[in-house]
Amino acid sequence: SCYGRKIMTGILYGVGVGPGDPSLLTLSAIQCIETADAVAYPCLEGTASFARHVVENYLKSDQEEIPIIIPMKQDPEPAQLAYDQAAEHLFTRIKKGKNVAVLCEGDPFFYGSFQFLFYRLAKKCSVKIIPGVSSLMSCAASLALPLAARNDVLSVLPAPLPNTVLQACLNVADTAAIIKLGRHFSRIKDLLSSLNLDQSAYYIERSSLPNEKIEQLENIDPSKVPYFSMILVNKRS
Amino acid sequence: SCYGRKIMTGILYGVGVGPGDPSLLTLSAIQCIETADAVAYPCLEGTASFARHVVENYLKSDQEEIPIIIPMKQDPEPAQLAYDQAAEHLFTRIKKGKNVAVLCEGDPFFYGSFQFLFYRLAKKCSVKIIPGVSSLMSCAASLALPLAARNDVLSVLPAPLPNTVLQACLNVADTAAIIKLGRHFSRIKDLLSSLNLDQSAYYIERSSLPNEKIEQLENIDPSKVPYFSMILVNKRS
Repeated sequence: SCYGRKIMTGILYGVGVGPGDPSLLTLSAIQCIETADAVAYPCLEGTASFARHVVENYLKSDQEEIPIIIPMKQDPEPAQLAYDQAAEHLFTRIKKGKNVAVLCEGDPFFYGSFQFLFYRLAKKCSVKIIPGVSSLMSCAASLALPLAARNDVLSVLPAPLPNTVLQACLNVADTAAIIKLGRHFSRIKDLLSSLNLDQSAYYIERSSLPNEKIEQLENIDPSKVPYFSMILVNKRS
Repeated sequence: SCYGRKIMTGILYGVGVGPGDPSLLTLSAIQCIETADAVAYPCLEGTASFARHVVENYLKSDQEEIPIIIPMKQDPEPAQLAYDQAAEHLFTRIKKGKNVAVLCEGDPFFYGSFQFLFYRLAKKCSVKIIPGVSSLMSCAASLALPLAARNDVLSVLPAPLPNTVLQACLNVADTAAIIKLGRHFSRIKDLLSSLNLDQSAYYIERSSLPNEKIEQLENIDPSKVPYFSMILVNKRS
């Protein structure tokens, strides 16, 4: 029944939804979400999707929603299998000419899990990225602490890296953002202290959300540091 | 005539307007601009304000506009004097209870000149920052090149820094953004080549604008590299 009708392939959108406050959505993100045929989002097994929560006022009742369930395991293999399956699943829609918006916390290309879908699908279909307000900028705004100025070197450092690597990077940077703190908080705090940087370090969690928390490092309970947390280090502050 | 009437001090807003495409404005930025009593923006002497251009559809005819004219000199002193005067000027409005929105290209705290006003006024009045989509994220989106993933170290490096510093930083980073290229382009290109990074380096100018340009480094005329340009280096790409 499709003879003579040209079927266009759809587009995969990686949509940055910002740090959590829905007012930090861009017009472009809202327009993409409102007009997409399907909206996909990752959720850690057993939890609600944070990215979906941010945009829920813009979802349409006739839109297909595609949750991508990511198993919570130390072993990265099951998550990668989940992305394999999700990529295939999204591609069945894209092949039929549907536009699929994948919701990404913050910005899609700044440490975002969207990249796992991007690398799987970029050669098979058209991909467009809608950049978002990153947690990096949101944390600096909440702390009222400039990230970088003039000829500052700014480094973004994932906390799971070994101290030797972190120290080498902190030595050459003027300002730094240490991300993915979680269970690494105590080690990072001790490292900053040993480098005499603890007085230039600022902790923030859940930036832009109603339960945003700004605290001095010594007041933090290391057992309660969430994933959405960051330490900004500004040697000039 | 004001006896008994409490005069509230206004708020200074640093408003990120994103990389240039007005659809990358956030709802929060639009709301702040639409409701501000006065809107200020820096313009280099003799040129129109880029940040004002991005938001011009949201400016109201009854809003005061305060251009901050920045002299174009190698010597930084005249610009700092201009910021001294601008800070005083804005503070006359804030003291009267007016909210003043300062427009900032990209994000206010990511190498933004808003910081010159922030440091002058933060102790005198309430300052709120509205984070924006940074050129960093916009350039990665335009290039379809992830900035960083997993435990990557990402460094932002201003091109005016000496080669020794840049090389030390590039050695410890997995991915890097080299900003403020301008007249430094040729030196940076040669440095990347000497470090065998030229095949992992991607050039972009005017990201998100209609005249956005993506080009291989060897095709760039060094005499025509604008301020709004960046090289992204991704060792894993």
